[in-house]
Amino acid sequence: MNRLKTNSEGAIGIFDSGLGGLTVASAVAERLADENIVYLGDTARVPYGTRSPATVVRYARKNVSFLKTQGVKMVIVACNTVSAQGLGGLADGTALPFLGVIRPGAKLALQRSRGGDIAVLGTRATVRSNAYRLAIEELEPGRTVHQIACPLFVPLIEEGWLEHEVTERVAMEYVQQLVGTDVDTVVLGCTHYPLLQPLLQRVLRTVLGRDVDIVNSATAVAEAAVRLLQQLGLEHGTGPARRSFYVTDAPDHVESVARRFWDQARVGSIRLEHIDLMDGVA
Amino acid sequence: MNRLKTNSEGAIGIFDSGLGGLTVASAVAERLADENIVYLGDTARVPYGTRSPATVVRYARKNVSFLKTQGVKMVIVACNTVSAQGLGGLADGTALPFLGVIRPGAKLALQRSRGGDIAVLGTRATVRSNAYRLAIEELEPGRTVHQIACPLFVPLIEEGWLEHEVTERVAMEYVQQLVGTDVDTVVLGCTHYPLLQPLLQRVLRTVLGRDVDIVNSATAVAEAAVRLLQQLGLEHGTGPARRSFYVTDAPDHVESVARRFWDQARVGSIRLEHIDLMDGVA
Repeated sequence: MNRLKTNSEGAIGIFDSGLGGLTVASAVAERLADENIVYLGDTARVPYGTRSPATVVRYARKNVSFLKTQGVKMVIVACNTVSAQGLGGLADGTALPFLGVIRPGAKLALQRSRGGDIAVLGTRATVRSNAYRLAIEELEPGRTVHQIACPLFVPLIEEGWLEHEVTERVAMEYVQQLVGTDVDTVVLGCTHYPLLQPLLQRVLRTVLGRDVDIVNSATAVAEAAVRLLQQLGLEHGTGPARRSFYVTDAPDHVESVARRFWDQARVGSIRLEHIDLMDGVA
Repeated sequence: MNRLKTNSEGAIGIFDSGLGGLTVASAVAERLADENIVYLGDTARVPYGTRSPATVVRYARKNVSFLKTQGVKMVIVACNTVSAQGLGGLADGTALPFLGVIRPGAKLALQRSRGGDIAVLGTRATVRSNAYRLAIEELEPGRTVHQIACPLFVPLIEEGWLEHEVTERVAMEYVQQLVGTDVDTVVLGCTHYPLLQPLLQRVLRTVLGRDVDIVNSATAVAEAAVRLLQQLGLEHGTGPARRSFYVTDAPDHVESVARRFWDQARVGSIRLEHIDLMDGVA
């Protein structure tokens, strides 16, 4: 594989099962203002977390095929479910560099931690996969990792209840499981969760009686992307950056959800375009 | 179309985007103990509510095709999203009788109501479709219908928080919109919601200060199925009834969810089988 063949002027391709990955795209756009970005949200088939591994791989491959047609120079898998299954099957047979969300989050958590336990908040599927625990174990064997499934966070975030009393009550219930542990660092192991960071910081302080460090995997991935582009000599020179956003189902009712995750005030406007990747296409 | 050709010994086919439709299947099994039932939950592509109409029709057609291969004598569309789009496109070109969930629920609400307003609780997609409002308007023009989107109910039910303080708080918030109205009947316009009926009865009493009638569309559909089979002369004689349950994604992690909706104590055991309807198949 000769990765140097990849053109530095290509875009950074980012895909997720839905729109949550826009928090990753937003962090990348902020950190790499000159880079072109092509985002694909597979909204026709979201959520991936409840699908079987074989189905998830099939969907992910279609997403990568589409991004290739857009001339991307690297692919960020902004989907915890796909990243948790490993990127080997996706990267296979292509010279494109791939970056998932799990390892950068795990790595940053270990850097931030002052030697205590690490907690990972994620969907039920992410917790079941043990992906963060395994990644942390690989980087630093023996570290205690607590995993908490928080299946109600995604619907609460999509409802926009970011500072709602109900969300606080739900967070209290989930975080309660960390009482009595030695946690000093909490990883937000789902692309939706950065929107709850202020509320979670407050709830964690209330429940644990101390401040803990919250690691946002969106910003962790953006940093990892910077390093990877530098290593491969694929940084883009100055110039007006293009940003394209594709979704696989009709974009009509989801623009408002997209705007929760893509920080327009900081990284510019967003307009979703429809691309059909269904049933044999792509 | 000659419906009499359909064999009375065929099964009742029931499909939904996921497992919520098992509340309908459960009600049908209880009401029609001698009838064979084939249930299909399209768990590989759930939820339909966020998909475009064209995508939903495409999925629904695949489901019907599969049920036909199982020799069904009628099809119950236990999915509000599909029912809301109208069954014309599905029934087209087939002699099978179709039954949706919207009209039976609307009809029963009008029968139960003592002349007051009717409220419909449903997902965002069902409310957006106005399907219940239109069905009630068609049956009895001029009746006031209040529609409330309750997007957090499905995840709360799937989490099993049927009597949780958080669910009560969420229900309070949704139902608050009915204060000051003349509602006497509330339709549960989502196949998941019957599991919240005890909690909703209590919350409605607290918020409105009076008892209202709750119409469960699962039992409404079961009654409608009884009438339709009688009308068409398709009732099945006595004999041991067969029940089959298919899902389109791996059944491993969803058996426990299925058992929330299928009332094993009253209608027997449930075992999910996998059937692949993806990408060009069926």
